[in-house]
Amino acid sequence: MTETLIDAVALFQEAAQLAASTLERFADREEPVVHYLEPEALKQALDLELPRQGRGLDEAMELAKKTLHYSVATGHPRFLNQLFGGYDPAGLLGEWITALTNTSMYTYEAAPVGTVVELAVLQKLADFVGFEDCEGVLAPGGSLANLMAAIAARHVHFPHVKQHGLRADDRPVLFCSAEAHYSIKRAAMVLGIGTDGCVQVPVDEVGRMIPAELERLIEEAKAAGQNPFFVCATTGATVTGAFDPVDAIADVTERHGLWLHIDGSYGGSALLSEAHRHLLRGSDRADSMTWNPHKMMGLPLACAALLTKKRGTLTKSMAMNAEYLFHEDSEPEYDLGDRSLQCGRRVDALKLWFSWQATGDEGFEQRIDDLFDQAESLRGLVRERKGFRLIRNQEGTNVCFRYLPHAHRNAVGEERVRREHEATLRIRREMAREGSFLVNYAQLDGAATFRAVASNLETTTDDLSAMLDRIEAE
Amino acid sequence: MTETLIDAVALFQEAAQLAASTLERFADREEPVVHYLEPEALKQALDLELPRQGRGLDEAMELAKKTLHYSVATGHPRFLNQLFGGYDPAGLLGEWITALTNTSMYTYEAAPVGTVVELAVLQKLADFVGFEDCEGVLAPGGSLANLMAAIAARHVHFPHVKQHGLRADDRPVLFCSAEAHYSIKRAAMVLGIGTDGCVQVPVDEVGRMIPAELERLIEEAKAAGQNPFFVCATTGATVTGAFDPVDAIADVTERHGLWLHIDGSYGGSALLSEAHRHLLRGSDRADSMTWNPHKMMGLPLACAALLTKKRGTLTKSMAMNAEYLFHEDSEPEYDLGDRSLQCGRRVDALKLWFSWQATGDEGFEQRIDDLFDQAESLRGLVRERKGFRLIRNQEGTNVCFRYLPHAHRNAVGEERVRREHEATLRIRREMAREGSFLVNYAQLDGAATFRAVASNLETTTDDLSAMLDRIEAE
Repeated sequence: MTETLIDAVALFQEAAQLAASTLERFADREEPVVHYLEPEALKQALDLELPRQGRGLDEAMELAKKTLHYSVATGHPRFLNQLFGGYDPAGLLGEWITALTNTSMYTYEAAPVGTVVELAVLQKLADFVGFEDCEGVLAPGGSLANLMAAIAARHVHFPHVKQHGLRADDRPVLFCSAEAHYSIKRAAMVLGIGTDGCVQVPVDEVGRMIPAELERLIEEAKAAGQNPFFVCATTGATVTGAFDPVDAIADVTERHGLWLHIDGSYGGSALLSEAHRHLLRGSDRADSMTWNPHKMMGLPLACAALLTKKRGTLTKSMAMNAEYLFHEDSEPEYDLGDRSLQCGRRVDALKLWFSWQATGDEGFEQRIDDLFDQAESLRGLVRERKGFRLIRNQEGTNVCFRYLPHAHRNAVGEERVRREHEATLRIRREMAREGSFLVNYAQLDGAATFRAVASNLETTTDDLSAMLDRIEAE
Repeated sequence: MTETLIDAVALFQEAAQLAASTLERFADREEPVVHYLEPEALKQALDLELPRQGRGLDEAMELAKKTLHYSVATGHPRFLNQLFGGYDPAGLLGEWITALTNTSMYTYEAAPVGTVVELAVLQKLADFVGFEDCEGVLAPGGSLANLMAAIAARHVHFPHVKQHGLRADDRPVLFCSAEAHYSIKRAAMVLGIGTDGCVQVPVDEVGRMIPAELERLIEEAKAAGQNPFFVCATTGATVTGAFDPVDAIADVTERHGLWLHIDGSYGGSALLSEAHRHLLRGSDRADSMTWNPHKMMGLPLACAALLTKKRGTLTKSMAMNAEYLFHEDSEPEYDLGDRSLQCGRRVDALKLWFSWQATGDEGFEQRIDDLFDQAESLRGLVRERKGFRLIRNQEGTNVCFRYLPHAHRNAVGEERVRREHEATLRIRREMAREGSFLVNYAQLDGAATFRAVASNLETTTDDLSAMLDRIEAE
């Protein structure tokens, strides 16, 4: 072995040790979720100067240790901040092998394993959705998957746009709920439609799109000379976790001949559970769906699937026929580059394959059920406690609640809401800075509201109670 | 330690062993570049059934080994197929730590280390470009970086589009060379401009955009009532490796008040070399630039930077003001999510940081110089050999050549080109199937042409001669 190779091997062995101690840290409640520093202080603590002269692999290892020390421990059971959390050893192994095989997904020739594996995992997901002969692609995140769905839909409804651009009489409009992810509105911006062309449909008391309102708004748009083409049903809204009623929405989109997209970035995984898949009833009637295994399924970022029902739609909308890459003598069915907005594309399929083989349908189903139960048990704890209240009727794995401090327990009406708002901002910031718990907040029904996400099976009822204790102890 | 934890630790240690033997394989010329199987056979060889019942972590390790066996060894010195190759241990370590810290780049709170590191590496790249106060963001690849640049430019020239959409009198057009990457044309499609709104400017005998032709086409478009807004100069064309003359193009774009973007996805790294940075002279006059460290700099995929000159431009064009994520009480300067098309975004900055600290400016400069030398030495070998010829005058790290088989040595004119074309297709396919060499081809000046890319410093003159021997031995 050459010297470089020996150094590299030593490096990997040390990296394996680091991985082991990181996982141990995740199991230790005495460890903070983050060693928080303000940006300027963090810049000092890290060595951000990029030197003229290289410092060698040992230096890289030093940076690895510093990185682990100052990073947020998203695998920690007291991290409830984002729509992902925990960790998955099989998925991690998949990421390492992806890095080691370092290739790009555009052609079968460059990524034979990645290609057949991606096709297999996409069809597996599609089977749960009810797309029998799916054309799909992995994307670097749900936002880009949603954007690609909107492009495919635009191509079906306005086929001239690909070559000739939007015409004055096209006037396309798309629809999503008032609590949909901002990537839908942004897709309207990107596509040249403009954010005004993204109509936000009112939601019910849970946060679910109201199908009758959708229909009313579609008819209004048509009456105004606009051309509705795309409806996004959100299953697992970012803040409330709510599931739009897909089946009833499909009735509307079918009546009006519109493309139905499901943004299941977050909640798509409920399809894996017998007990919860009713939340996506009617998914097989959609034209496309985004589903991120890196959220509820616990895979490392990024693993986000765009699934379309009708083979060819995605490729037709996206392909630029780049001859240098996609050769005539190759097998187009296996050259996936033409169905993506990306050219070079990291292999995100391996981790899902490894994880699925290790975990199985049953393992994932158990995981989903347990996360739903965890959220329900947090709701129970919140209901029980004086000073706490749940905001809205809730479904899914997000728990939105507010806390009214002891000093203001008599506050009512607007004053109560204002006190809750202030307490949310102050307390969650303190917790984030001390690293005791990371739990996010969002504006909901007029005030800052805690949003705790069930995403890690290692999070126990004791952890959840300890979080409420900490909030109360402010 | 719990049982799961012990299993995971054992898994990582085995993964470190796998990494070591993979790197050893890269050093062994007896090892093929790929154990090639046709798709159906590969599906049989891998286990693509995703089971109901999980098979545990041992199964994941089995899949890892199979993956390594059937993957293309892009780190092998006889892999010259794509615009990337080789391997970088510090970068690999960065990828592993990224997977381990598993977080998303939208906010400082979720990714404190990733955020300050990304800002530091982006400014380091920008310093080479000549953007003193850069606003940039890492993207999952050059195509999406180019798309974001076009969105930023559109927002500057047609600010109403973000909210109100394209108007009939906007008629935007953009320009790139006839040999630019297809992502520019696709950006026109995505943005609702249509591919007809992407004007392809003729190139010279090397493959470089002709500035006078650009100016002529801009004036033609204006005369036709169209509104030019964006010019993409390609530095390091995908097929020929050619560098558009940025300085002369900037004269044109400044005269006409257009946004100048440099697609330096491939060749941007020439800026790191005293000897070769003249190829990008005038880069500081551009408004934005794409530069992929995962290509010439040897970082693992994906590491692609979009750099813009004027702070605020990118954020203004992209931001949707998603309150749930980007809190009022946070520090907007450090919440990078609003300057990207993505929401969740993998941390791609760590590997570049690790690698830069390990390698240094000087190490990267040496690397770039050596790759340019390697390409030049392959050109020398091609020139020397009977039956081989270089196609076009060439610059950069791509070598485009054709071979005329012994049996047809007397062929001239169109027949010669046809024979070369057939030989290229046949021979490179044979090599790819037997795994001796992976070298790509593209249609160039009317016929299939070998395109060998210098991307791995371990590739020796002996390897290059052996490749030509193999071609000749067909």
